[in-house]
Amino acid sequence: MEKRGMLYEGKAKRIYETNEQDILWIEYKDEATAFNGEKKDTIIGKGRLNNEITSIIFERLREKGIENHWVKRLSETEQLVKKVTIVPLEVVVRNIMAGSLAKRLGMDEGTVMDTPIVEFYYKNDDLGDPLVTEDHIQVLNIATPGQLENMREMGLQVNEVLKEVFATINVRLVDFKLEFGMTNDGELLLADEVSPDTCRLWDKDTNQKFDKDVYRRNLGNLQDGYQEILNRLGGSSCTK
Amino acid sequence: MEKRGMLYEGKAKRIYETNEQDILWIEYKDEATAFNGEKKDTIIGKGRLNNEITSIIFERLREKGIENHWVKRLSETEQLVKKVTIVPLEVVVRNIMAGSLAKRLGMDEGTVMDTPIVEFYYKNDDLGDPLVTEDHIQVLNIATPGQLENMREMGLQVNEVLKEVFATINVRLVDFKLEFGMTNDGELLLADEVSPDTCRLWDKDTNQKFDKDVYRRNLGNLQDGYQEILNRLGGSSCTK
Ligand SMILES: Nc1ncnc2c1ncn2[C@@H]1O[C@H](COP(=O)(O)OP(=O)(O)OP(=O)(O)O)[C@@H](O)[C@H]1O
Ligand SMILES: Nc1ncnc2c1ncn2[C@@H]1O[C@H](COP(=O)(O)OP(=O)(O)OP(=O)(O)O)[C@@H](O)[C@H]1O
Ligand SMILES: [Mg+2]
Ligand SMILES: [Mg+2]
Repeated sequence: MEKRGMLYEGKAKRIYETNEQDILWIEYKDEATAFNGEKKDTIIGKGRLNNEITSIIFERLREKGIENHWVKRLSETEQLVKKVTIVPLEVVVRNIMAGSLAKRLGMDEGTVMDTPIVEFYYKNDDLGDPLVTEDHIQVLNIATPGQLENMREMGLQVNEVLKEVFATINVRLVDFKLEFGMTNDGELLLADEVSPDTCRLWDKDTNQKFDKDVYRRNLGNLQDGYQEILNRLGGSSCTK
Repeated sequence: MEKRGMLYEGKAKRIYETNEQDILWIEYKDEATAFNGEKKDTIIGKGRLNNEITSIIFERLREKGIENHWVKRLSETEQLVKKVTIVPLEVVVRNIMAGSLAKRLGMDEGTVMDTPIVEFYYKNDDLGDPLVTEDHIQVLNIATPGQLENMREMGLQVNEVLKEVFATINVRLVDFKLEFGMTNDGELLLADEVSPDTCRLWDKDTNQKFDKDVYRRNLGNLQDGYQEILNRLGGSSCTK
């Protein structure tokens, strides 16, 4: 596989084309950003940790029958994925109240929900990734009701698998964000990443945070929490 | 009917008990507020205009089979209504893109929607009346899925009647906000007001605004637009 031109540089990753039309080469960067890019820092090791964690998780999801874009880990910070056209929605699944939703609803962080909830946010940095309803998504012409229903369903399935994966390592899965894309065949595929950048992960016993909130809220060293997650997931078995 | 103690003073109305347990006495005030109370002014005549317009509209809705809390206009600024326990949701129905939704989605004001959309906002001044999804409403335990479906249905029915009412007087119904409440018998009833404070109303030919946006955006005299709506609705026939 050959790396070709860079397609896109985001806040956390660089995306390159390859010699195969349907395969992209992703490089995870050592950069952390928060609050729509207002806070920004280089954090040595973050790219490696997210690349490794995301690889483990996408592999576990596939084992459990949840197809996704992940093809192969290439190096500490690089992986290959199937190319898709990203649906500009962030699909958020929540088990425990936290973050922006706790603020929106005026509820306490940590409140356990009776049943997981699924939300859609419009991926649009200029607008600050606003919460949108299914009606709004129709007006924006972003996804059909059928595709939305699929994303909701897949979000809940991913939640069931991940809750189990994290429970096994004594971690509570508070919430997470997914992105989906359309393949050339018109298939909806789970894409992007699943990592401590995109999940809230709390230690089951101490509620210690192992996710990007450590960075957002200046609670300590981001890498330590990410490394803890990788270790507990048995990360060493994943090293080259 | 006797007026008893004041139950509640809001930004636009005062609510009194009466000698009948299920009947409230509403007094429409001459106050305009916007941006969650940040902008505030006394506007002579506003109370009378909203009381009269809301009375006409609730009467028309009832004629068309849409039950609501309105009982009787008492004076220029007062009316009687059935007492309900307000569901803390603002039910917004939109035909044309405008206001906060245009900002949220980054779309142009005036874009006509293919089909009306219905939204729920959590009535909570401290939180700034945030947009909420049906999942959020379940978490907040505000209304059952069945009640939500009823409110959506009734919102769309009100929209059909009002679009017709306003089309007849050469006015475009852009959007509007409804509130619902539960009667003692557990019945969901349309309540609060339907007036230029709670609707966006644009002249069909010139797009001139006849609603509270005139005040929010400093576009001229609020009363003139409200008076124009009352006149076109045949308001004189409604005067004592
Ligand atoms: N399989 C895929 N095919 C095509 N694009 C993908 C795929 N997986 C993820 N992407 C996109 O690649 C980009 C990854 O970069 P990164 O996560 O750094 O972006 P970002 O800074 O979060 O910005 P944004 O997600 O808002 O574009 C994202 O835009 C993501 O949607
Ligand atoms: N039939 C009814 N029974 C009981 N309460 C009602 C009824 N109709 C309307 N209300 C409530 O009475 C109040 C009317 O006052 P007003 O419209 O001035 O309030 P407001 O300043 O908009 O504040 P709020 O945020 O409470 O709506 C509102 O709280 C409204 O929900
Ligand atoms: Mg991203
Ligand atoms: Mg009100």
